[in-house]
Amino acid sequence: MLKTRMEQDSIGRIELPSDCLHGIQTERARQNFPITGVPLSHFPVLVRAMAMVKSAAARANAETGGLPQNKAAAITAACAEIIAGQHHERFSVDMIQGGAGTSTNMNANEVIANLALVRMGHRPGDYAHLHPNDDVNHGQSTNDVYPTAIRLAVLARTLPLCGALHCLKLAFAERSRAFEGIAKVGRTQLQDAVPMSLGMEFAAFAVTIGEDIDRLRDVSQLLTEVNLGGTAIGTGVNAEPGYATLALRYLSQLSALELKQSGNLIEASSDLGAFVAYSGILKRVAVKLSKICNDLRLLSSGPRAGIGEITLPAVQAGSSIMPGKVNPVIPEVVNQVCYQVIGNDLTITMAAEAGQLQLNAMEPVVAYNLLESIRILKNAVEVLTTKCVSGITANEDRCSALLENSLVLATALAPHLGYDAAAAIAKEALASGRSLRAVLEETGQLPPDKTHRILGNAAMLKGPER
Amino acid sequence: MLKTRMEQDSIGRIELPSDCLHGIQTERARQNFPITGVPLSHFPVLVRAMAMVKSAAARANAETGGLPQNKAAAITAACAEIIAGQHHERFSVDMIQGGAGTSTNMNANEVIANLALVRMGHRPGDYAHLHPNDDVNHGQSTNDVYPTAIRLAVLARTLPLCGALHCLKLAFAERSRAFEGIAKVGRTQLQDAVPMSLGMEFAAFAVTIGEDIDRLRDVSQLLTEVNLGGTAIGTGVNAEPGYATLALRYLSQLSALELKQSGNLIEASSDLGAFVAYSGILKRVAVKLSKICNDLRLLSSGPRAGIGEITLPAVQAGSSIMPGKVNPVIPEVVNQVCYQVIGNDLTITMAAEAGQLQLNAMEPVVAYNLLESIRILKNAVEVLTTKCVSGITANEDRCSALLENSLVLATALAPHLGYDAAAAIAKEALASGRSLRAVLEETGQLPPDKTHRILGNAAMLKGPER
Amino acid sequence: MLKTRMEQDSIGRIELPSDCLHGIQTERARQNFPITGVPLSHFPVLVRAMAMVKSAAARANAETGGLPQNKAAAITAACAEIIAGQHHERFSVDMIQGGAGTSTNMNANEVIANLALVRMGHRPGDYAHLHPNDDVNHGQSTNDVYPTAIRLAVLARTLPLCGALHCLKLAFAERSRAFEGIAKVGRTQLQDAVPMSLGMEFAAFAVTIGEDIDRLRDVSQLLTEVNLGGTAIGTGVNAEPGYATLALRYLSQLSALELKQSGNLIEASSDLGAFVAYSGILKRVAVKLSKICNDLRLLSSGPRAGIGEITLPAVQAGSSIMPGKVNPVIPEVVNQVCYQVIGNDLTITMAAEAGQLQLNAMEPVVAYNLLESIRILKNAVEVLTTKCVSGITANEDRCSALLENSLVLATALAPHLGYDAAAAIAKEALASGRSLRAVLEETGQLPPDKTHRILGNAAMLKGPER
Amino acid sequence: MLKTRMEQDSIGRIELPSDCLHGIQTERARQNFPITGVPLSHFPVLVRAMAMVKSAAARANAETGGLPQNKAAAITAACAEIIAGQHHERFSVDMIQGGAGTSTNMNANEVIANLALVRMGHRPGDYAHLHPNDDVNHGQSTNDVYPTAIRLAVLARTLPLCGALHCLKLAFAERSRAFEGIAKVGRTQLQDAVPMSLGMEFAAFAVTIGEDIDRLRDVSQLLTEVNLGGTAIGTGVNAEPGYATLALRYLSQLSALELKQSGNLIEASSDLGAFVAYSGILKRVAVKLSKICNDLRLLSSGPRAGIGEITLPAVQAGSSIMPGKVNPVIPEVVNQVCYQVIGNDLTITMAAEAGQLQLNAMEPVVAYNLLESIRILKNAVEVLTTKCVSGITANEDRCSALLENSLVLATALAPHLGYDAAAAIAKEALASGRSLRAVLEETGQLPPDKTHRILGNAAMLKGPER
Repeated sequence: MLKTRMEQDSIGRIELPSDCLHGIQTERARQNFPITGVPLSHFPVLVRAMAMVKSAAARANAETGGLPQNKAAAITAACAEIIAGQHHERFSVDMIQGGAGTSTNMNANEVIANLALVRMGHRPGDYAHLHPNDDVNHGQSTNDVYPTAIRLAVLARTLPLCGALHCLKLAFAERSRAFEGIAKVGRTQLQDAVPMSLGMEFAAFAVTIGEDIDRLRDVSQLLTEVNLGGTAIGTGVNAEPGYATLALRYLSQLSALELKQSGNLIEASSDLGAFVAYSGILKRVAVKLSKICNDLRLLSSGPRAGIGEITLPAVQAGSSIMPGKVNPVIPEVVNQVCYQVIGNDLTITMAAEAGQLQLNAMEPVVAYNLLESIRILKNAVEVLTTKCVSGITANEDRCSALLENSLVLATALAPHLGYDAAAAIAKEALASGRSLRAVLEETGQLPPDKTHRILGNAAMLKGPER
Repeated sequence: MLKTRMEQDSIGRIELPSDCLHGIQTERARQNFPITGVPLSHFPVLVRAMAMVKSAAARANAETGGLPQNKAAAITAACAEIIAGQHHERFSVDMIQGGAGTSTNMNANEVIANLALVRMGHRPGDYAHLHPNDDVNHGQSTNDVYPTAIRLAVLARTLPLCGALHCLKLAFAERSRAFEGIAKVGRTQLQDAVPMSLGMEFAAFAVTIGEDIDRLRDVSQLLTEVNLGGTAIGTGVNAEPGYATLALRYLSQLSALELKQSGNLIEASSDLGAFVAYSGILKRVAVKLSKICNDLRLLSSGPRAGIGEITLPAVQAGSSIMPGKVNPVIPEVVNQVCYQVIGNDLTITMAAEAGQLQLNAMEPVVAYNLLESIRILKNAVEVLTTKCVSGITANEDRCSALLENSLVLATALAPHLGYDAAAAIAKEALASGRSLRAVLEETGQLPPDKTHRILGNAAMLKGPER
Repeated sequence: MLKTRMEQDSIGRIELPSDCLHGIQTERARQNFPITGVPLSHFPVLVRAMAMVKSAAARANAETGGLPQNKAAAITAACAEIIAGQHHERFSVDMIQGGAGTSTNMNANEVIANLALVRMGHRPGDYAHLHPNDDVNHGQSTNDVYPTAIRLAVLARTLPLCGALHCLKLAFAERSRAFEGIAKVGRTQLQDAVPMSLGMEFAAFAVTIGEDIDRLRDVSQLLTEVNLGGTAIGTGVNAEPGYATLALRYLSQLSALELKQSGNLIEASSDLGAFVAYSGILKRVAVKLSKICNDLRLLSSGPRAGIGEITLPAVQAGSSIMPGKVNPVIPEVVNQVCYQVIGNDLTITMAAEAGQLQLNAMEPVVAYNLLESIRILKNAVEVLTTKCVSGITANEDRCSALLENSLVLATALAPHLGYDAAAAIAKEALASGRSLRAVLEETGQLPPDKTHRILGNAAMLKGPER
Repeated sequence: MLKTRMEQDSIGRIELPSDCLHGIQTERARQNFPITGVPLSHFPVLVRAMAMVKSAAARANAETGGLPQNKAAAITAACAEIIAGQHHERFSVDMIQGGAGTSTNMNANEVIANLALVRMGHRPGDYAHLHPNDDVNHGQSTNDVYPTAIRLAVLARTLPLCGALHCLKLAFAERSRAFEGIAKVGRTQLQDAVPMSLGMEFAAFAVTIGEDIDRLRDVSQLLTEVNLGGTAIGTGVNAEPGYATLALRYLSQLSALELKQSGNLIEASSDLGAFVAYSGILKRVAVKLSKICNDLRLLSSGPRAGIGEITLPAVQAGSSIMPGKVNPVIPEVVNQVCYQVIGNDLTITMAAEAGQLQLNAMEPVVAYNLLESIRILKNAVEVLTTKCVSGITANEDRCSALLENSLVLATALAPHLGYDAAAAIAKEALASGRSLRAVLEETGQLPPDKTHRILGNAAMLKGPER
């Protein structure tokens, strides 16, 4: 019994274990790209997407007559196992790879071919009976298969990300209701501005997250346009008539996504615009999430020498040297994830700009960064929701003490005294360390009852007229 | 007759020329922000937008009773002059300014107040009769006025940018038709791939630009949501009941835009998400435009030792030392504008992330970069269209010579010989410097007539099946 | 008398006013690049640097015999006027231009040629007597002249930038001394940490600025290596023997800089690495300056519902609606400049990456962004120094009240009680709203005099042992 | 025998396996930060650096009397094992973590404490005998330990990166010598410019890499300044007199690096400037490396319809559909790594800017990105050297055919005919498809022998005068 087999290509021969499920091209790629150490299998969603594309293609090819039924059946059965989560460890090429994804496609072709061969009673590597390129890759090119699979993968991970964001939104909304009656100082430019309620502040966080979910859903629509059927450069060379339509239909079924063919397959072959747009929205999510985390850290600063209006749940000791210190570690880790997502967006941007003529060879780094950004963003959002936001408590006494001691009701005086007179009173109060009311009463500019009515006015808290 | 007047605020007094149309706050801001040297008036569209907001607010205030009719009339008349393009030189504060746009708002308030005062028969600075803050700014805050005006300005410039892109798209489409029959080598990863036509290549440029126009239109919808009426932090403090709805209605009329109020004004006061999304799309436009320009430069490389499939119009001597050299200067300048837009997007991203609590103080640099990116992108697109794309000519002989000499038809052999055999033939042809046909015939793997049919197959040029 | 003259090149003819000091190539460039509206003359330092290079080249050419003495004399005289600040308005091509700076070089060649012609008694445009390319550009190429001039310009602006930073450092150091004895809460992660003095805090700002000055000086050394003499691609084609050495010597004299020739002129022709490194340091300055401004805004937050340990000078009214509000507008404008500088660094990075083969055609956008970043950074630093830092006052009472009310001395207990016991006491104090001392005494873990010694220990303020 | 043990902190209790080498704080951190899945142990160099710091601190503490000799001995023995590569799997907290590295420090403290306890004959968790904070962390804070360890780690990886770059430089230099005599077209702006040799082109690659090595060495000097001894915020609280100096001395011994104490420890506690500068240089390396890879791809474009002056070694089949296609996959993967490094630099930049007051809480993401960038850059450089550059071959015939067919000698005519006449000849040659020589002879502007001398002049290839 042979322990190894030889495979050969135009470049030369390579010896592989006889039961190895990948072939010579995967092996070359493994050797050529020892870069990140992150294999394709790190993103099961991408491996599954590749298998879905291969399965859909095989069915379409069987139907057009491009592929014998028995081969197609073996291929789709192999793909089904991969879609079910098996054999992922065979997808071992590095996520960052040269060749515009060819090695990912070759890896899929070879593993599927060998799985199918075994299923057909042959040995791995016995490609005369079923060939990675001629059969598994029939009517396909890396240049349509790979970007299609990336789109499927990103779409598949968009839903969980939106789900995590939705939970965060609900957590903020729930806290908002809990904090509804708590009056506090609203701050602009870190300076005391006008009154608001803590509930309003948290409601705004909920709204902003909600809008991001909408934007993610919108932009993900762009990814439902795929270039499957375009083959090498969008001209559809080597694809049988009728194949493209069939393949797309089967892929829609398999993925449960309403996919459509790109309007211009030549353009679609080299264009990464949809990924840039999607990453731009991830960047937006990161920007807004980072702002929220900054706010949570500001509002919980202290506990005694800061703002201290809220308390974040303590999840670990804050310091190796300062006993009792508790730090806002969850918002901090989310901030860092946001910076990573923004950095990844730049990587994606530069890679997208580097397309040349009929292809963008830099797609692998785009796929890697997109999928990684989605992954860490979802993780971060979940941690933020469960370990921080849902356990935030309000320090009501602190909120009202700061509000009462502040000069933020000066704005309420302006309609009655004019801006300039109100400013003078605020300035005098600040300089003398007194309250607005005290200074105002001394000036006698308003009758006491009107002063009382204005400065006691809770109307500032009722929220804007719609 | 007084040559100067004194103005005063909580900080102190400042002497101004007696007919000066701006007041003390503008003067302070002029001195505080000697940063870029680019004044507000550099972007007339922003000045006009500020005047539209002020005019709409005055009408609404008149209707709610917050402002006497005669004051409102004087204010709207002053605004009308500004909207018509007058007095812009009075908007002299630096585009990059501290204070979250307060100085821009103060500048507008003061200039409008003084124009109105003169119109009412008073002297500039005679604010007892009409006050910049109490009257012009009645029921408003920088924090709702300024972001609303930025949105109007960006929306107003989106149309011309889309128009310029549309002309570029048409120019590519027109060239595409002119180049329809010209067969050439399609290239992936800068390596000869499969045949295509030059017309297809240019059609793809047209399509990609067209998609960007769609994206710009989509994202600009986000900007039609404004927070006017929220005043200081979104609680609507100091705005009369009914004001917000009226102001929005008048502003929609004045701007001919269908504006709507943000769903949550607290959130809207500090959120720059719409600007981040818009800039993200500008970045996408830049990425794709840069890729196109890179392609134009590649395709026109030579004239003799490069690809040389197309010739760009000569618009200037290319070199101070190399006589006769003509360079692709127009695509080059467009590339550079694209890098600038991408850099500006980063500035916008960082500024957006720096929002704190109820406001983002960094809006001015966002406004500056957005408006500048739109401006230079439009300029660049127009230059590209008129001075380059529309005059591009095809070098048909070069296209067909390169195609005939190439080995790109090897792909057509694969369905007949199998991938491995076709690869061996291509390799042999390359190594020996011969044609595919010669090598193929020598091997005798296919009958001559079939060889002829396959290698002469124009089907690769017909484009993909839909 | 002729009112116009005709000039001609390989592309065609252009009519110019007869006394126009620029020629056909400048005119073409003006029409080709209507991009930013920022002309070369916006950066006088770049115009002067171009004139210095041209003057040095003319002297060198005169000495090698490549240029007749009378022509060289006329050219150097023309250059002297430009160096002295005259004729800058003739440098009217857009800063962002295609052609790798050829238009800048052509503009210089033409203006200098025409000034020299007039000086020699001829009419502008009479190039038979002195030619922009054959004479002014003798032995030169845009590809060595332009990057050399950019380097000179950046070097010339480095000194004032370092000067401005030095003043800022001194201002922080002076405030540091003024705040020396003021004990306060030190904060990590926005949480109360351990005591320090306000003087220490400001001393750290001074030190960090000082280090940036050192880095700027270090990196500027890279720019003293120039490629003058390499001409078109670094092979020195068309330069007379001996010219390069002479030109460099004269340029060093004129610029008062110790310039040296790049070690490999081929490499130097296309490499923008020194600009990337320089911009990377500008980015570092921006990062650190932004952090400082964030701190100033945090420390001055309030005036009553924030940290409020310091007060920034009031330089303008802070709000159009909130009377008496004073905002940290100066740090805010500096933050924004920092974001701009960081965005510009990305533009420079992308442009540098876009070099191809023997040249980087994107140098103009690099020059523009470098010079602009230096300019606005210097402006921002000066404003920060004079309008903010030097006028900052300490709120001593607030500092000590926050410190006394805090639990930051828990760390001092750890060496005596152990980390765990100290943490328990801090936790109890926080939960019960009491002081550390009260809780500690209740536990009886330490004798009262030791408690007193530890918690009264000023040693935490003495600064670290060296 | 107990299978589990309980550990407790201010927040509560956690059950751990009784032989678990980490403790409650590590366990909390593992649960709090399920972000990237990349544990500390992914970077052995960082784990070793933490152990070196702990070992040096223990020795110093033993010498000052802060720590009993037997505890110190147990700690240093435990650290020695970690430095030797053992127990790394116990460093399991995520690289991206909140808390400014506290969890990394706690993880080290706990693992080292438990290893030491076992060594002393106690059970893990028996902290009464040796405590993670009171003993292992004695006189230390995360805020001085963690940044010191990051610096050590980066310094330790700088050498291998420089080594890899040095090999690349040598490979380019070796190829340069092999290609010395091969004349070819030099290109600027992708247009044929003037002659050069392929050897010159490759020598420039070697030089540019060499300069990057120098920059990396320079910038790494900044990292030899560490803040060990500053403890919590740089005031040195809780460190014994004499400790800082001793700890630094021992750490220098252990690491074989000449470390020095930061000039101002308060400043050093929050400043990430050295990391920003280092990353800025990594970005520069990436920019230049990417440019080189772009050039290699351009020069090897074809094989028949591109420039084709060089051939890259074939390392894998290029296409799943196009038989015989060989792609420049190695430069492509390097390009992508470069984009990743540039994106990571942005992440580092944003994290560095987010420092607040006495600390930067975002250090973990900085450490992660720095170490990852160095790692993938080194991997990419090694692959580029061994699998691409050292096997590049020149296509001499192609080089000389392109050169002879070109018009690049027009520049040599200019000194003899003047720029304008030479331009006219070049234009005529291009338009008519003839050679310069043919057109020139027809005009009769130069005697035939002079024409011959000029156009045959090999001087353009000799390189510039120095």
